[in-house]
Amino acid sequence: MKRVYNFGAGPAMLPLPVLEKARDEFLDWNGLGMSVIEVSHRSAEFEALLTETDNLLRELAGLPDNFDILYVHGSAQMQFAAIPLNLMPLKPAHKAAFIESGHWTVLARKEAARYGQAVTVATSEASNFNHIPDYDVSTLDADTSYVHITSNNTLFGSRWNEFPDTGDIPLVADMTSELMSRVIDYNKFGVVFAGLQKNLGPSGMAAVMIRKDLIGHAMPQTPNLLNYDTYAKNHSMPNTINTFAVYMMNLVLKWLKDQGGVPAIEKINAQKAKLIYDAIDATDFYRGAAQKAHRSQMNITFTLADSALDKAFLSEAEARGLYALKGHRVVGGMRASIYNAMPLAGCQALVDFMQDFERRHG
Amino acid sequence: MKRVYNFGAGPAMLPLPVLEKARDEFLDWNGLGMSVIEVSHRSAEFEALLTETDNLLRELAGLPDNFDILYVHGSAQMQFAAIPLNLMPLKPAHKAAFIESGHWTVLARKEAARYGQAVTVATSEASNFNHIPDYDVSTLDADTSYVHITSNNTLFGSRWNEFPDTGDIPLVADMTSELMSRVIDYNKFGVVFAGLQKNLGPSGMAAVMIRKDLIGHAMPQTPNLLNYDTYAKNHSMPNTINTFAVYMMNLVLKWLKDQGGVPAIEKINAQKAKLIYDAIDATDFYRGAAQKAHRSQMNITFTLADSALDKAFLSEAEARGLYALKGHRVVGGMRASIYNAMPLAGCQALVDFMQDFERRHG
Repeated sequence: MKRVYNFGAGPAMLPLPVLEKARDEFLDWNGLGMSVIEVSHRSAEFEALLTETDNLLRELAGLPDNFDILYVHGSAQMQFAAIPLNLMPLKPAHKAAFIESGHWTVLARKEAARYGQAVTVATSEASNFNHIPDYDVSTLDADTSYVHITSNNTLFGSRWNEFPDTGDIPLVADMTSELMSRVIDYNKFGVVFAGLQKNLGPSGMAAVMIRKDLIGHAMPQTPNLLNYDTYAKNHSMPNTINTFAVYMMNLVLKWLKDQGGVPAIEKINAQKAKLIYDAIDATDFYRGAAQKAHRSQMNITFTLADSALDKAFLSEAEARGLYALKGHRVVGGMRASIYNAMPLAGCQALVDFMQDFERRHG
Repeated sequence: MKRVYNFGAGPAMLPLPVLEKARDEFLDWNGLGMSVIEVSHRSAEFEALLTETDNLLRELAGLPDNFDILYVHGSAQMQFAAIPLNLMPLKPAHKAAFIESGHWTVLARKEAARYGQAVTVATSEASNFNHIPDYDVSTLDADTSYVHITSNNTLFGSRWNEFPDTGDIPLVADMTSELMSRVIDYNKFGVVFAGLQKNLGPSGMAAVMIRKDLIGHAMPQTPNLLNYDTYAKNHSMPNTINTFAVYMMNLVLKWLKDQGGVPAIEKINAQKAKLIYDAIDATDFYRGAAQKAHRSQMNITFTLADSALDKAFLSEAEARGLYALKGHRVVGGMRASIYNAMPLAGCQALVDFMQDFERRHG
């Protein structure tokens, strides 16, 4: 069986032991004589799996007790509507502030504008989002319902290193491309959400970690399945949950625990990223796309000085089992997404290839 | 490896050859060296899979050309909000009519009431939904935006045998528990939708078949990912689609084609249902819950004349590999869900057990 190093931005590489376990028990889960995707979400066995997943996520994230965990339909982007529908009413002005560091923050702001005032308070768009914009949160209007940020920018390869202290105004963070890859102090946040398909499992579902006091304020027009209260009151099963996604996330979290948890994986992730960034910085043949101070540890964006070589780079890489390195069209060049499941050996293989490619084409 | 007959209402039994194929290629799909759940939804390989799935569904359903197929997040229940958000504006009165034949129609009506007038024009609630209520659709108000029905009632074990001709008023049908189990004339409908987790795959996603002229009328407050126009314009991939659900649905549809398609499976389904209904009707020991004229071919509801025997029935059944026969609490007794993937042999095993149980306890 062939396996490649998949540098795609998501759906993304998953840990091999997780895939092997899922395969081995695909026809008979838990000795029940059926697949996990055939089992009722209302069965005692599935309910136990869900509770175990809660506990694993809470323990590994270090999530405070005053937070609820919700598993919601529709990947992260559905939350671009759910967040304003649930949080705009926190203040009478129905106003939300956006610190725009990339494509997804812009989309979130546009969606929020359906439900109130969606204000761009800072943006790095003028420099094609190659850094996190500076912003003094103490200048926020006091009647702001919440502040929205994207903690890691998948397309542009930047990340927030330190998170702002927004005081009484809840900070909402889209952590889709980095949840569980670094230690986070959740006390700084009101809501953290992430689609699973990068660090946690397959696509289609998102995890929402939300301070309990922020639940129960939704606008009357909120669809029942976008209302956090509906999920909180029904252990995320007001209707049939994405059972396969919960199951895969459970296996991924167990794997993460085996690796030593988030602090351990964060160290490995830093090593992996450094390896590639060092290779980029060692030559003029390659150029990092994001500003050094704001570089992502998950998505490494770089261009070739001579973009005429892009095609050769990609096809030679693929021939060596280094897959999906093409950058997003708005940045161009290359992007190596190196989520938790990408082993150090995969990053080393990429660096070896980059150096070899330069020797032959430089 | 143990395998049982799973009579659960959903997530439900899937065809064994489908599960085996998914298992066998779980680590290396399409020779790509990665799992299908690791592949980018934007890859050429996944796009081809999605298109192939469209074509299979269209061909097997016999779907007319003036219909679009959309794959949407959140199982069928998310559509309880999406339908009114997209269709209420078809008429200025923003009024929808509900012919209530069970729990899910009631829930759909309550959700629609957020977005306009949601009118119950007929209901069988007074007899605990043991039949499809009579209703003369020619008495519908002309300013009705759409009529909502549930074609098969999973909880109560009833179904619509013939569908009403609502003329210019679009007929919307929730076919979650019977899509692709019987031949349907889609020309009678404006929208047909179904969660996958009964006849088509795993949970978390729904398929929507919608007449093209009904797309593009959504209310301004519609979340982007509940707007049919968003899905129609982006081949159901405005954001990351549930790739695993598409893949499994693709395999299930290929299996269905191998069985001879919908007309062939409909005949087998009728045989399967008759076997069990005949066993119920042959004795006073068991009693069918739904009126005979409206009996479902997918969900067979029945009670034991002596409900004190329920517990013994369920535990003895499970010991024989007949799983999840417990009825929903609002009906009580038993429910045998016999979707496409349940083989005739499973129904025969259930009948054998029922007769044996009666001999010993009758």
